[in-house]
Amino acid sequence: MYSFKNDYSEGAHPSILEALAKTNLEQTEGYCEDHYCEKAKTYIKHAIGVENIDIHFFVGGTQTNLTALSAFLRPHEAVIAVDSGHVCVHETGAIEATGHKVIALAGHEGKLRACDVESAVASHTDEHMVKPKLVYISNSTEIGTIYTKAELTALHTICRQYNLLLYVDGARLASALTSKANDMTLKDLTLLSDAFYIGATKNGALFGEALVITNDILKADFRYHIKQKGGLLAKGHLLGIQYMTLFQDSLYFDLGQHANDMADLLRTGIAKAGYNFLTDAPSNQIFPIFPEAIVTALETQYAFYRWSSTPDSTAIRLVTSWATKEEEVLAFISFLNTLN
Amino acid sequence: MYSFKNDYSEGAHPSILEALAKTNLEQTEGYCEDHYCEKAKTYIKHAIGVENIDIHFFVGGTQTNLTALSAFLRPHEAVIAVDSGHVCVHETGAIEATGHKVIALAGHEGKLRACDVESAVASHTDEHMVKPKLVYISNSTEIGTIYTKAELTALHTICRQYNLLLYVDGARLASALTSKANDMTLKDLTLLSDAFYIGATKNGALFGEALVITNDILKADFRYHIKQKGGLLAKGHLLGIQYMTLFQDSLYFDLGQHANDMADLLRTGIAKAGYNFLTDAPSNQIFPIFPEAIVTALETQYAFYRWSSTPDSTAIRLVTSWATKEEEVLAFISFLNTLN
Amino acid sequence: MYSFKNDYSEGAHPSILEALAKTNLEQTEGYCEDHYCEKAKTYIKHAIGVENIDIHFFVGGTQTNLTALSAFLRPHEAVIAVDSGHVCVHETGAIEATGHKVIALAGHEGKLRACDVESAVASHTDEHMVKPKLVYISNSTEIGTIYTKAELTALHTICRQYNLLLYVDGARLASALTSKANDMTLKDLTLLSDAFYIGATKNGALFGEALVITNDILKADFRYHIKQKGGLLAKGHLLGIQYMTLFQDSLYFDLGQHANDMADLLRTGIAKAGYNFLTDAPSNQIFPIFPEAIVTALETQYAFYRWSSTPDSTAIRLVTSWATKEEEVLAFISFLNTLN
Amino acid sequence: MYSFKNDYSEGAHPSILEALAKTNLEQTEGYCEDHYCEKAKTYIKHAIGVENIDIHFFVGGTQTNLTALSAFLRPHEAVIAVDSGHVCVHETGAIEATGHKVIALAGHEGKLRACDVESAVASHTDEHMVKPKLVYISNSTEIGTIYTKAELTALHTICRQYNLLLYVDGARLASALTSKANDMTLKDLTLLSDAFYIGATKNGALFGEALVITNDILKADFRYHIKQKGGLLAKGHLLGIQYMTLFQDSLYFDLGQHANDMADLLRTGIAKAGYNFLTDAPSNQIFPIFPEAIVTALETQYAFYRWSSTPDSTAIRLVTSWATKEEEVLAFISFLNTLN
Repeated sequence: MYSFKNDYSEGAHPSILEALAKTNLEQTEGYCEDHYCEKAKTYIKHAIGVENIDIHFFVGGTQTNLTALSAFLRPHEAVIAVDSGHVCVHETGAIEATGHKVIALAGHEGKLRACDVESAVASHTDEHMVKPKLVYISNSTEIGTIYTKAELTALHTICRQYNLLLYVDGARLASALTSKANDMTLKDLTLLSDAFYIGATKNGALFGEALVITNDILKADFRYHIKQKGGLLAKGHLLGIQYMTLFQDSLYFDLGQHANDMADLLRTGIAKAGYNFLTDAPSNQIFPIFPEAIVTALETQYAFYRWSSTPDSTAIRLVTSWATKEEEVLAFISFLNTLN
Repeated sequence: MYSFKNDYSEGAHPSILEALAKTNLEQTEGYCEDHYCEKAKTYIKHAIGVENIDIHFFVGGTQTNLTALSAFLRPHEAVIAVDSGHVCVHETGAIEATGHKVIALAGHEGKLRACDVESAVASHTDEHMVKPKLVYISNSTEIGTIYTKAELTALHTICRQYNLLLYVDGARLASALTSKANDMTLKDLTLLSDAFYIGATKNGALFGEALVITNDILKADFRYHIKQKGGLLAKGHLLGIQYMTLFQDSLYFDLGQHANDMADLLRTGIAKAGYNFLTDAPSNQIFPIFPEAIVTALETQYAFYRWSSTPDSTAIRLVTSWATKEEEVLAFISFLNTLN
Repeated sequence: MYSFKNDYSEGAHPSILEALAKTNLEQTEGYCEDHYCEKAKTYIKHAIGVENIDIHFFVGGTQTNLTALSAFLRPHEAVIAVDSGHVCVHETGAIEATGHKVIALAGHEGKLRACDVESAVASHTDEHMVKPKLVYISNSTEIGTIYTKAELTALHTICRQYNLLLYVDGARLASALTSKANDMTLKDLTLLSDAFYIGATKNGALFGEALVITNDILKADFRYHIKQKGGLLAKGHLLGIQYMTLFQDSLYFDLGQHANDMADLLRTGIAKAGYNFLTDAPSNQIFPIFPEAIVTALETQYAFYRWSSTPDSTAIRLVTSWATKEEEVLAFISFLNTLN
Repeated sequence: MYSFKNDYSEGAHPSILEALAKTNLEQTEGYCEDHYCEKAKTYIKHAIGVENIDIHFFVGGTQTNLTALSAFLRPHEAVIAVDSGHVCVHETGAIEATGHKVIALAGHEGKLRACDVESAVASHTDEHMVKPKLVYISNSTEIGTIYTKAELTALHTICRQYNLLLYVDGARLASALTSKANDMTLKDLTLLSDAFYIGATKNGALFGEALVITNDILKADFRYHIKQKGGLLAKGHLLGIQYMTLFQDSLYFDLGQHANDMADLLRTGIAKAGYNFLTDAPSNQIFPIFPEAIVTALETQYAFYRWSSTPDSTAIRLVTSWATKEEEVLAFISFLNTLN
């Protein structure tokens, strides 16, 4: 049964495995202090086009989020996020476990608007309430939408105005930045945020998230926090080698592009078959709406998540990735067409 | 320059890399719910010879320790450990960061004795002090010593008497259990502790620690804790495949044996050359004492840590591993002999 | 300027001050282990009519809530509360600071319904989300409404069904239980909840909240938690003497009754003057709605909080207490009538 | 049975009770924003002789310590304290519960020396260990000794050198500053520390600790921390009135002097009777050593704590206070003399 459940079902892109195999018996420094990590950082800085940043490698996204947010905040400070945000829902209270409230706001197509941030700040008036300090967004969002440069700029501006930090969860950044709807560069993102991460677990690596800290104030002592939260990988060179491979040429973006191409193919085929979508998501997650009978029939051949339902229909989530095979997408469309 | 700095300088045993490559493009369930993890658990249970245990896979040791200890303890409960213990010194306060005091006791050859535990319990008399609840030990210890079955039994007994939990950090368990001085089996360890972990990062895997929970009371909801602390690996099958490879036959123990054999070779050669040792450590860490001039000379050819020093001499730490090459050990001994 | 801002503007009921003065130079045991605390507990148990409960005295409500909730929950467990709940909004993230998410639900007249709890449980499906474990309600609520026995019984039943704890914040319990709309006894509350507290700071004491733990499982080691969170009062007899005075006869309820009587007087006068109310609150907080000009005029003579506003009108909060003087209430009504 | 167990056995100095009674029915602002708190701060600043400080009132010492230390530290930063320090032993892990390790060092007569701090800093070398950031001392110490100005200056200097904060727990500051052995003023203490508190619970108040923050960097948003940790007293004027009473004239110091005078009387009498002391403590705690038979006999008439014992003798702790009666001290000495 072919799976469209998520973008981390397979292992790594072959060139990553190859690089790991080739360097396997070399002795390296532990804890990301090896020369591969150094080289990977150089490549990433080159890809971004900004030098004055700190880069730290993590194994997973929840680990990255909880380490960064707890390092950046004082005890009374809180996070602002959309209520569908990963830190709000799907990290088992990881941020709260480090002591910080996450203020959940209703999203607009999964996104936070500058005016939402402003309202949240306005409603937190004194020391009997937490102090909003960090705005958390994901790009792409949990429902596949992406931020435009104008939207991110507006968030950046409001954050500067109210002395807030802007943090971007980039678990699916490759898909966001290579989406047809995207008008932002890595450099834009770097200049508009205080920190963000470049996700690779969902874009061709065995694992890996590269946290980029752009705000000087947040840089000091950061490795202490990684170690304390259990995120400092002993064989750190594994992260270095993977990111080196992804960023020594355009592989990171090529893989995101492939995921998007496969999503486009799916989207077009489903639309042509006459179905609508829950959201107008231009990245590697799509949310078609089918009659329940169609969903049941699809489930006999494909793995995916049911997302939401009404009495008449069910929205499902289909996720493509760097590893999605075109023939499987075409087969899905064909099968769907047989169900009409 | 050849390194004896630690046992995590290289990648993975070739058969592990091979297994990862072979399964690379298979689609699997995420978060350690795949069939490789299931199979790995079956193999481990078989190796242990006990069925009624829960096994959870982690990427690293600090992550394992902090997740387990915070899951097992209520807020007022504390950990007892030797002052050289990993959780006391080398985890950047990870346990305290989850809210729990670590009561540091002086060790005896790096080990905790039952009588030490009893004293610690006796000196914590009321609710103005923390309540000791969990005894943390490492096998092998931070200075390479190992626990005998009698010593562990004594700790187990005192823990039962005072309603304490006994937790064993097994980052270097392979070396401990295959040491010439060892008289314990994996089954003994399982029956005598409430939880322990089988370390693989330092024994041939790219990464991996398998937490074994033997006490039924500690089992409930454990995966919530892993997720909350950022330790649930998205591509969990990577852990399953590695442990499957290590435990489908005797590879895990063979690798530990090799590390010990190499340490024995080093130890014998150094002793024959006329030097003493800081501790009588029968596992893969040895602590020879040299005149400062010898240490300086060794440093021109080898990487290792200086451990402690007196005006007259310096103790260094030499660590061998599954990857240590016999010819490099012999070369080290030869070089040492040229320095006399 | 007379204040209707809150119910903790004055000191203590004179009989409490008298009792404190009378016993002032007696030597007593510290930390609530004195005979006054013992006696107070006996009186409270008698007032409740249940013997098998544990009682602990605290200085303030946030302290009580954070100590109890953090003691009762394991790290991955979360609190369910209405979004206007004190722990959600007005405790500066105190619960999150102990590591626990507070799941905020929309309230119905400030109250949580059993069906709301059921939905919250249903939407938390696996270990990627927190596990709802404790339902937090206030009686009376933040907007002055109170729970009926039927409502509390429904919550109790749903909590038992889903293995949740039911916790009642009783900062304004005296007013709730002596409200004309109330049909519950202290004994009902005790039998229907796992823990609750009997607030005195807002009902005639200098300070004091008496936490009642009814669920045996939650009782063990509780004093450790009070001490750890900084809530164990050195001169604990001050709490004992105050609760003794409040519960040796009907004083606690008499003071609540007075607060309600004064609120009734205010409510009737305002209604008679032709104004409506934001909520139909039958306790010591009322929320009349006035044209902005009236509010501005009232502010020249009285202190109170503005609660919410529309372009046309402003709702204010008026709070009465054990200390509110009838002549001041009458004067307020008279003044209001001059403003029409 | 007369008690020398501690200095918080009685209520408050009569003039404090009187002031509370006199102002009892006044309406005041809550949460320490009333005019009594303002006046108290003015008096304290006058007594100190430094204007540029922030003052916050707390109910108890553990509350003060945990709020201040958690507010001042980032997650990876640790506290340095002597192993007999209150935060090390007698606060049920309150500091660890906020996430911070307390590094316990052996004390010298209960005190920390600058060289001890320097060693602790030197042994914490990298991000695998916590980062020492705040030095916690008590004056007087847990065993009644006090810091000289030279000692505190040395600590201040070493702290500046290593970018550490210096925090002084002043639970028994009144006794320390009025000891015959003292050569420091409140102003010295203010200029040499980053924060300290002026304890009143043990010096004549019903309760109260006034935290003085001298370091500008530590001042921002501090009230958020007090509220979050449950320490913001609703009827804050109770703290204001007490401190106003203590500092409007020399009462605070007079009460400390009385405690010391009573301790001197005890000390002299015991020495004259031929007994030695465990420590040479010049404040209101003394630690005489008696044969076990004498201790047993004293216990028939007096309450006190046994401190430590050898096969031959037992050291007990006798504590005097503002409330200790001279006739009781004389009676104790007389009784002791009958036991020889």
